[in-house]
Amino acid sequence: MPANPSEVMPPLLAAYAGRRQATPPVWFMRQAGRSLPEYRASRARTAMLDACLEPELAAEITVQPVRRHGVDAAILFSDIVVPLKLAGVDVDIVPGRGPVFARPVRTPADLDHLVAHELHPEALAPIEAAVARTVERLGATPLIGFAGAPFTLASYVVEGGPSKDQLRARTLLHADPVAWGRLTAWLAGVSGAFLAAQVRAGARAVQLFDSWAGALSEGDYRAAVLPASARALAAVPGGVPKVHFGTGTALLLPAMRDAGADVIGVDHRLPLDAASALLEHRVPLQGNVDPALLAAPWPVLERHLEQVVTAGAAAPAHVLNLGHGVPPTTDPGVLTRIVDWMHSRV
Amino acid sequence: MPANPSEVMPPLLAAYAGRRQATPPVWFMRQAGRSLPEYRASRARTAMLDACLEPELAAEITVQPVRRHGVDAAILFSDIVVPLKLAGVDVDIVPGRGPVFARPVRTPADLDHLVAHELHPEALAPIEAAVARTVERLGATPLIGFAGAPFTLASYVVEGGPSKDQLRARTLLHADPVAWGRLTAWLAGVSGAFLAAQVRAGARAVQLFDSWAGALSEGDYRAAVLPASARALAAVPGGVPKVHFGTGTALLLPAMRDAGADVIGVDHRLPLDAASALLEHRVPLQGNVDPALLAAPWPVLERHLEQVVTAGAAAPAHVLNLGHGVPPTTDPGVLTRIVDWMHSRV
Repeated sequence: MPANPSEVMPPLLAAYAGRRQATPPVWFMRQAGRSLPEYRASRARTAMLDACLEPELAAEITVQPVRRHGVDAAILFSDIVVPLKLAGVDVDIVPGRGPVFARPVRTPADLDHLVAHELHPEALAPIEAAVARTVERLGATPLIGFAGAPFTLASYVVEGGPSKDQLRARTLLHADPVAWGRLTAWLAGVSGAFLAAQVRAGARAVQLFDSWAGALSEGDYRAAVLPASARALAAVPGGVPKVHFGTGTALLLPAMRDAGADVIGVDHRLPLDAASALLEHRVPLQGNVDPALLAAPWPVLERHLEQVVTAGAAAPAHVLNLGHGVPPTTDPGVLTRIVDWMHSRV
Repeated sequence: MPANPSEVMPPLLAAYAGRRQATPPVWFMRQAGRSLPEYRASRARTAMLDACLEPELAAEITVQPVRRHGVDAAILFSDIVVPLKLAGVDVDIVPGRGPVFARPVRTPADLDHLVAHELHPEALAPIEAAVARTVERLGATPLIGFAGAPFTLASYVVEGGPSKDQLRARTLLHADPVAWGRLTAWLAGVSGAFLAAQVRAGARAVQLFDSWAGALSEGDYRAAVLPASARALAAVPGGVPKVHFGTGTALLLPAMRDAGADVIGVDHRLPLDAASALLEHRVPLQGNVDPALLAAPWPVLERHLEQVVTAGAAAPAHVLNLGHGVPPTTDPGVLTRIVDWMHSRV
C-alpha cells in the first residue's frame, strides 16, 4: 500500500530509510504481550495460536501498546510458527514451554511429510484481515510485519520444540546439507509469503526474527543459513524496509546485512557504536536496551538509556528498542516512561 | 603437590604451559557423564550431589573416561554448586532441570542469609579424598580441578534455578552493585577454596567454568564480574595452570584472560585462529569442536576436526576439546575415535 504522497513520513520509516531523527523513534520487541494487563485480559480465554488467527483479537492486541505507551510503531501480534500452522503443519504453542510439533523432522520421511505442506494464499486471509484492521486503527503509526527466520524455525521443527542450544538442527545442517537445504528453503517460502501478505495488507516495514542465529559461527551462518534468510527477505515487496534481528550475533552482523537487511537489530551484548563500526557505519540500527535494566531503579535505567542513545548516534540512524523481547514480568509503566523520556528529548 | 622432577611433563600440562605439542592433547568437557553406560550404571542408585560427595564413587566416575577413551586428562566429577552445598546452603540438583535453591537471593535478608554460610576447610574433606583416590588411579594422566565462576553461580542463586538469559542476576548487577559485590565476593570465596582444595589434594591444573558469561557485554563483565572471577582464580596455588571457559564469549576473551587465566577455553562459535588473534597469539587455547558435529557422519566430523586443529595452530599451544559439554546422547565410540584420530597424527 503506497503511502499518501502528502503524508509526512513517520519517524520510524524515516529512520529505517537511514535518515537520522531529532530523537530516535522507539518501540519494544514483544510490546504486545504478557507485560500488559489488557493483553492478559484479552487472551484470558483464547489459546496463543487461536489469538493470532482471530483478526479482531490480533488487531486489538497489536494496537494495545501503541495506545498505552505511545510507541512509534506497532508490530503484528503473531508467532513465528503461525505460517506453518496455516500451511497445515501440526504445531501448537504449549504455555510455559513454547512451540511443539507433533512430528519433528528427524528422518527423510519426516522431511518429505513437512515440505509436502503448502501455504495457500487463501490461508493467509486471517492475517491479512488482522493487518487491515490494525492499520485502520493505527492512523499514522506504522505497522511492522513479523516473521521467524528459517534457522530459528528449523531449530524448533527439527527438535520438535524449544532446545537449549539448537543442537539437533545444527547437527542436521552439517550431517545432511541437502536435507537442510530443502528444509530451510521450504521454511523461507512460508516465512516470505507470511511477510509479503502482511505488506500487501498494509504493513509498512517488516522484521525477520532469527532469535537463535547466535548459536552459529559466521562460517556456518554464511554457508547454511544466509541463503534461506535472503530468500525469505527477497519475498518482501520492494521499497519496504527490512529489519533483521537475532541475539548473540556480534560475529554475524555483516552476514545478516548481506542476507538483504536494510536495518539490523542488535542485542544488549554489543554496544551500538561497536555494532555500527562492524557495519562500516552504513546501516541503520535498532536496539539495544538491556531487558535486565527494565527492573532496575529509574536512575540506573536512565543512565543506561543515555549510553544506548549516545552509542546509537554512531549509526546513520537509530531506532530505540530492547536487546530482546519485553520480559513478561516487566512493569508496563517503565515502558511508558522510556517512551516519554525519549520523546521529550527533542 | 610438586611434580617429580624426573617425570616427563604430561602433554596437557606442557600445552597449558604454552609449549606446542606434536599433536594437541585431548579431553572433553563433561567426559565423565551421561554419554557413558558405565557412568549411568555407577549413578543408577545415587543422586547427583550425593555422587559428588562420595569419594569412591566420584573417583570412579572421574577415571571412567580416561579408561575408556584414553584422553590426556581427567577432570574431577563434580558440580558447580558442590562448594555451596558444602557450605551448608540448601541446594539440590533436580534431574532434567538443574540446580534448585530453596531460598533464592531476592532481598537483602536473603543475601545476608546466604553469605552467613561459611565453607569450613574440614567440609572439603570428601572432595580432597575423591581427588586423592583419583590421582592414585590416574598414574601419569593429570587431573584437572573444577569450579563454577561467580557470575554463573550467581545466575542460579539469584534465579533460584536455571534461567534462559540470567535476567534476574543481570538486573541485580546493575540495580544494586553493593549487594552484587557482596554476593559475588562470597561466591568467589567458596569457588576459590574449592579449587585450592583440589590442587592441594593432587589436581595439577584447574578450570573455572563461567558457562553463562556470554550473556554479558564486555563492559558489564569487566565492571561487575571480572573482579570476582579474578579472586576465585587467585586462590589457586601458584604454578598451577588455570583454564577459563564460557560459551558465547567472543566479546569477552581478553577480559577473561585479564581475570588471571593462563589458558582460554573457546566455544564452537569462534574459530580458534580468530580467538587467538583477539588474544594477540599469546595465550594457549582449548577447544572448540562443535558438539553438534558429534552426531554427524565421521567424514563430516573428521573434516571439522581438521579445521579445528589447523586453526588451533595459530595459538602458542592447543588442547583439543569440545566447544561445550558432551551432549548426553553422544555415542561414546565417537569420542574414543576422536582421541585415537588425534593421537595417531604424531
